[in-house]
Amino acid sequence: MLRLYGIPTSGNCYKVELLLRQLGIPYETVEVNSRTGENRRPEYLAKNPLGQIPALELEDGTVLAESAAILVYLAEDTPLYGQTRLERAEILKWLFFEQTRIARYIATTRFLVRTGQAEANAELIAQNLKLGTEALEIMEGHLKGKEFFVGNRYTIADLALFTYTHVAEQGGFDLKPFPNIRAWCERVKATERFFPLPGA
Amino acid sequence: MLRLYGIPTSGNCYKVELLLRQLGIPYETVEVNSRTGENRRPEYLAKNPLGQIPALELEDGTVLAESAAILVYLAEDTPLYGQTRLERAEILKWLFFEQTRIARYIATTRFLVRTGQAEANAELIAQNLKLGTEALEIMEGHLKGKEFFVGNRYTIADLALFTYTHVAEQGGFDLKPFPNIRAWCERVKATERFFPLPGA
Repeated sequence: MLRLYGIPTSGNCYKVELLLRQLGIPYETVEVNSRTGENRRPEYLAKNPLGQIPALELEDGTVLAESAAILVYLAEDTPLYGQTRLERAEILKWLFFEQTRIARYIATTRFLVRTGQAEANAELIAQNLKLGTEALEIMEGHLKGKEFFVGNRYTIADLALFTYTHVAEQGGFDLKPFPNIRAWCERVKATERFFPLPGA
Repeated sequence: MLRLYGIPTSGNCYKVELLLRQLGIPYETVEVNSRTGENRRPEYLAKNPLGQIPALELEDGTVLAESAAILVYLAEDTPLYGQTRLERAEILKWLFFEQTRIARYIATTRFLVRTGQAEANAELIAQNLKLGTEALEIMEGHLKGKEFFVGNRYTIADLALFTYTHVAEQGGFDLKPFPNIRAWCERVKATERFFPLPGA
């Protein structure tokens, strides 16, 4: 059985767990808590030298890392990944955008706010609010007249982008000016076998 | 003919241009200089709403963005991308690692140093040097006993990781403690149709 290392409240872990459930793939979980530094312990680094959660261990012991790469691995050959070369390039574009802008500016800010580190990082947070809002503006524009990000159906691009975007207000972002994003979040929540991000 | 938007001295543009040449794909270039803000002009945003360089325009007018997604698009069905599901997941892992750690910590630092903004960003640079060096340590460990990152052959994982790593010392990083990385850089430079990063 597949084995998922991480904690359920981590957005990047949630992405993989949501996809596993939506694809109906059985898995077991092993808690590796990044908040207490368990991801830096030698036993875990031996499995995933990148030192992050999540990691996904296959039945033969191979360990996959980087949440977005795991999403592609799991969704390949399903409608949740691209059916054409161009669709795959579009989905990957949004997966990279998500990691370099949404995760970087929005997830980081939400984490600092929720862990009481906002005041000590006021300058960083101000910059993240600006750059994260620019990223939301790009998403809002792209969603104009669209139900989902790529190929007019729910894919791992939506799943990945949804995760930190739908809780952006917990980091001090304002989603009111983004009606397309808010409507799209509701569509993601209505997909089959969806479950909410724990602790959000 | 494919049309590449960007500037030759940008590492992310260089990655795409190097791959185009190594695959023998004809292309033309259109200068969009991010240093002078040309990437934020309405004409360019109409083509690439993400507002970054590079972008690659296909013959039918479709515009691809996010350098790593463009690399996958171009290398699909060639030996430079993964031949199996697992190889593809491994290559994608390193492409995400590259964008979230190497580009983020090393490329940014090199840019600040080379544009005279080091003193004004001393705290950020100190943090980037620490986190970028941790990323180099991960690469050094992975390369132990290996010629290339994935599948024992040159792939777009090597091409992407090489770009900002081989000029890391221009950002104040020290590559002397990383003999595996230095030997691997030489192997990348020896690949067919390689050309050096302009202005480096």
